[in-house]
Amino acid sequence: MPRTAARGGPQTRARISQVATQLFLERGFDGVTVAEVAREAGVSSVTVFKHFPRKEDLLLDRADDALEVLRTAVRGNGDVLTELHEATLRLVDERHSLSGLKDGSVPFFATVAASPALIARAREIADELQQALAEELAAGMDPGDAALLAAFFVAGYTTVLTRTAARQLAGDTAAEVADDHRGRVDHLFAKLADGFEN
Amino acid sequence: MPRTAARGGPQTRARISQVATQLFLERGFDGVTVAEVAREAGVSSVTVFKHFPRKEDLLLDRADDALEVLRTAVRGNGDVLTELHEATLRLVDERHSLSGLKDGSVPFFATVAASPALIARAREIADELQQALAEELAAGMDPGDAALLAAFFVAGYTTVLTRTAARQLAGDTAAEVADDHRGRVDHLFAKLADGFEN
Repeated sequence: MPRTAARGGPQTRARISQVATQLFLERGFDGVTVAEVAREAGVSSVTVFKHFPRKEDLLLDRADDALEVLRTAVRGNGDVLTELHEATLRLVDERHSLSGLKDGSVPFFATVAASPALIARAREIADELQQALAEELAAGMDPGDAALLAAFFVAGYTTVLTRTAARQLAGDTAAEVADDHRGRVDHLFAKLADGFEN
Repeated sequence: MPRTAARGGPQTRARISQVATQLFLERGFDGVTVAEVAREAGVSSVTVFKHFPRKEDLLLDRADDALEVLRTAVRGNGDVLTELHEATLRLVDERHSLSGLKDGSVPFFATVAASPALIARAREIADELQQALAEELAAGMDPGDAALLAAFFVAGYTTVLTRTAARQLAGDTAAEVADDHRGRVDHLFAKLADGFEN
């Protein structure tokens, strides 16, 4: 394969993100330049920018995965709340990084918590996911309902993830947090289904 | 009154914010420095920073008002959803800037929409309000319920405000948008009360 094609491929993208993540976790987000990431990954800065136009996305690289999980759930055959609930619990079973329960995630949480730029980008990604989820949901329900359900789900799931990260930052292991996390996911979906007066 | 006291007073704070807002709306957020705001307001840059540690808050100066509205509602005598619903509709009756329906708000919406820094700060303020609302609510309900209700309310009300701003940016007057805005507020509270399966 010619080198130009290799530089543009998904393996190169994955290697860049992996190298960048390791550097950020060691030295903090502001302690690493894009040029250093490029040098460590054996590519040019131009190649890094081509795959990751924003430095933040070198670490926060799961937005596409999250969107794929949501899309698959909404396009499933079942009731949309049931599908989303099951998809969210499957992330726990898999100790998927999108559940916040992947082993070894504490340095990641600590790096994000220490960086206003990463926190701001995480909020922006949540907004983008909310918008994309609302559009998906609107194919099968009233657009006003879709906008609110997407807003409630993303905001509610963010509270679950935040608490799960905070407990691990405070010293609990992922295994210790997992049952509580499941309970908070179930609670979220109970409120989405029935509201606060039922 | 000695000048030092005057420089620290609420009137000085209000004048600084008013001067800054006018400059930002005329020239964009990035087109105005804090030093220019200070000069126009007749104070030092130190005084500006004392009142507004973040430049963004010179324009986004209603977070305290929003918190006060939420606190008063939660501490009211009635059911918390009813109190919040009524408080939100009162903002519409008053054409309060927190409803997005104050006359002459379009340049404000346009200035925020054009500035990534202001959008990021608006998201951060929403997070701060959500956290404060959750703490208020937790005085009268299960903390897990309080966290979710605060998340759903802030995310849902943000969708209402965003749509109300977008319609006015597209050319509709506040008067033309008001009835639709009320309908979206009522819809929000119906979903908060009864969820998406009822």
